[in-house]
Amino acid sequence: MINEFLLKEFGERIKSLRIDLNISQETLSHKTGFHRTYIGMIERGERNISLINIAIFAKVFEMPISELLNLTTVNPNHNFSDYETKSEK
Amino acid sequence: MINEFLLKEFGERIKSLRIDLNISQETLSHKTGFHRTYIGMIERGERNISLINIAIFAKVFEMPISELLNLTTVNPNHNFSDYETKSEK
Repeated sequence: MINEFLLKEFGERIKSLRIDLNISQETLSHKTGFHRTYIGMIERGERNISLINIAIFAKVFEMPISELLNLTTVNPNHNFSDYETKSEK
Repeated sequence: MINEFLLKEFGERIKSLRIDLNISQETLSHKTGFHRTYIGMIERGERNISLINIAIFAKVFEMPISELLNLTTVNPNHNFSDYETKSEK
């Protein structure tokens, strides 16, 4: 899948914010309303999350989606030039 | 659907950037690799776009996903306090 590295980076971002709050996956599950299994899959970069679900995490971490998706926080070399389009594939 | 207003704001963001580039939906379709019908649905806020597909638009508009999702550009009152979680529903 193209751009799959983003799912890994997003998962690291969620895990890192969860650890900053000192809460378990189970607590994050209660706060978001997502199943604990889904939280685990997101943190491992195994799900291509939708915009609506990204906003649910952003609400719990009290930041706009643009800040949640600032992935230079987990990868200082994060750069849009690494994204791929479907037409380049 | 919760957080549906975000799909509308994202659609406006895409349309606004496309107009700034002075390109048609058809040209954006060629650049992204998405079907023109999908571009139309996204611009009208009718699709809950995934992270991987958000990155495809970001690549074409030459900016990180965090910047593409800066929705204060289309709604100055955009605020994360308006996002909802599934547990509040």
